[in-house]
Amino acid sequence: MGEIVPGPVFEEALRRSARAVESKLDALLPRDGGPEARLYEAMRYATLNGGKRFRPFLALESARLFDVRMDSALRVAAAIECMHSYSLVHDDLPAMDDDDLRRGLPSAHRKFDEATAILAGDALLTFAFEILAEEATHETPQIRADLVRRLAEAAGAQGMVGGQMIDLASQGTLLDMGAITRLQRLKTGALIVFACVSGGLLGRASPEALHALQAFAHDLGLAYQIADDLLDAEGDSAILGKTAGKDAKAGKATFVSILGLERARKQAAILSEQAIQHLDLFDQKADLLRQAARFVISRRN
Amino acid sequence: MGEIVPGPVFEEALRRSARAVESKLDALLPRDGGPEARLYEAMRYATLNGGKRFRPFLALESARLFDVRMDSALRVAAAIECMHSYSLVHDDLPAMDDDDLRRGLPSAHRKFDEATAILAGDALLTFAFEILAEEATHETPQIRADLVRRLAEAAGAQGMVGGQMIDLASQGTLLDMGAITRLQRLKTGALIVFACVSGGLLGRASPEALHALQAFAHDLGLAYQIADDLLDAEGDSAILGKTAGKDAKAGKATFVSILGLERARKQAAILSEQAIQHLDLFDQKADLLRQAARFVISRRN
Repeated sequence: MGEIVPGPVFEEALRRSARAVESKLDALLPRDGGPEARLYEAMRYATLNGGKRFRPFLALESARLFDVRMDSALRVAAAIECMHSYSLVHDDLPAMDDDDLRRGLPSAHRKFDEATAILAGDALLTFAFEILAEEATHETPQIRADLVRRLAEAAGAQGMVGGQMIDLASQGTLLDMGAITRLQRLKTGALIVFACVSGGLLGRASPEALHALQAFAHDLGLAYQIADDLLDAEGDSAILGKTAGKDAKAGKATFVSILGLERARKQAAILSEQAIQHLDLFDQKADLLRQAARFVISRRN
Repeated sequence: MGEIVPGPVFEEALRRSARAVESKLDALLPRDGGPEARLYEAMRYATLNGGKRFRPFLALESARLFDVRMDSALRVAAAIECMHSYSLVHDDLPAMDDDDLRRGLPSAHRKFDEATAILAGDALLTFAFEILAEEATHETPQIRADLVRRLAEAAGAQGMVGGQMIDLASQGTLLDMGAITRLQRLKTGALIVFACVSGGLLGRASPEALHALQAFAHDLGLAYQIADDLLDAEGDSAILGKTAGKDAKAGKATFVSILGLERARKQAAILSEQAIQHLDLFDQKADLLRQAARFVISRRN
């Protein structure tokens, strides 16, 4: 097994993958148009923003384990990013987290207006499924239908949207470790799991391999979230590109508020190592995924 | 060919279909749950409301032409109603049409709150695709993938959401007949077309039959919208179950404001007859669809 400290090689791989996803999104998203052009602009603004594209990276790397055709993996990666972007646009709305800043720029409803932001989110959510269902995504309809079903499960009421509801409903209440773990498993974990599993679905991975990817993603997702809470508690808005300290301000329970800084850091490190162990059945092709597990706890934004 | 004036037989068929869809939705939608229970409640509130279920009716009747298994058709009908309901919840939001009343009851954001209404809409939109992609909907994955793709096209940026964007963007501007026809084709027509075509897809209809259903739905959808504008201009809020006269108040161009009452009525009647003619290749099995075309221009709410 190769080097698993995320160094320049990892970072270059992440950047390369982000560029490929950006250009696929640019090619897929609608443009121009008549009086609805504003909607297309808002969809593009919310997605073509030079983000890290971490979820798409996971999808591309998991697809690479099974020698999936690049264009196929890129389409799924783009669909995942549409889903992720819609969730950020809606979460930033005044009625939700009311955030003016996203990736260092005005959030969509500040750049455009609330109605346009709501509609752009709706359109991106819908577009994610359109991409997956199209024949170009995979020649086998069963695989396309599976991708749609699993993404819907991950994103819907019993996944990401359910997690956001719990998050909003529990503001000001004291969540315990079990409750906050469940919240994060739904709110951020489910889409990360889908990203990792999608490559296996595209590549007709064995049930064993799919299970390993799922377990990897589960631990990775939790480590990612604890790292996020640490960044929010310790971070600098300028580096984060979003408002730091907002969890404490909102009276939100986080892994940091429950565990404290020291134990939270430790827990994230344990989860990161555990995630890597789940990849033992894969050869060095999985090294970038292994490095990703280290990356999530060492990143500064 | 049988009777095509929508009388008690038609109305009873519509009610029977609405009850079947209501009970399918009730069985499919999530319930109970922990801290996210409020989300499930809002999803149920927005869908289980005793509506006419006109789009689901079209899906069920078009499926009947091809002897589609009832449960299969009901699942697609339920998915269509989830999609329709989400669009109403989001359209009613303060940042959009700002409507407090829906089907005679407080709209979702008034009954719950804005954040919950946004999330319930997101979850219903996602759930529509989940239902379609599940194996229970049709044994052939190609048909499930087609349904997902076509619903996404009908509902997304180049369909329903695009139409709502045009509607918002053109308030206070004078749309001509061409522009308003395009707006309505996207905003309400696309989902009505999907409803009529979905039955044909489930039943492996010939390209000819699919085309006839599409042409029928196109004219029906336009007639439906003109009738809606007439009801808004002439109607009574108590019968409508929503605020009447709001188009004029919002300075919106409608078919009525462009054509005037008399010509609008005439145009709706012409479209209704034209819709019926597209069904000529079907036998008396299509009689309820024929009556539906009359129904849309004679309804009072």
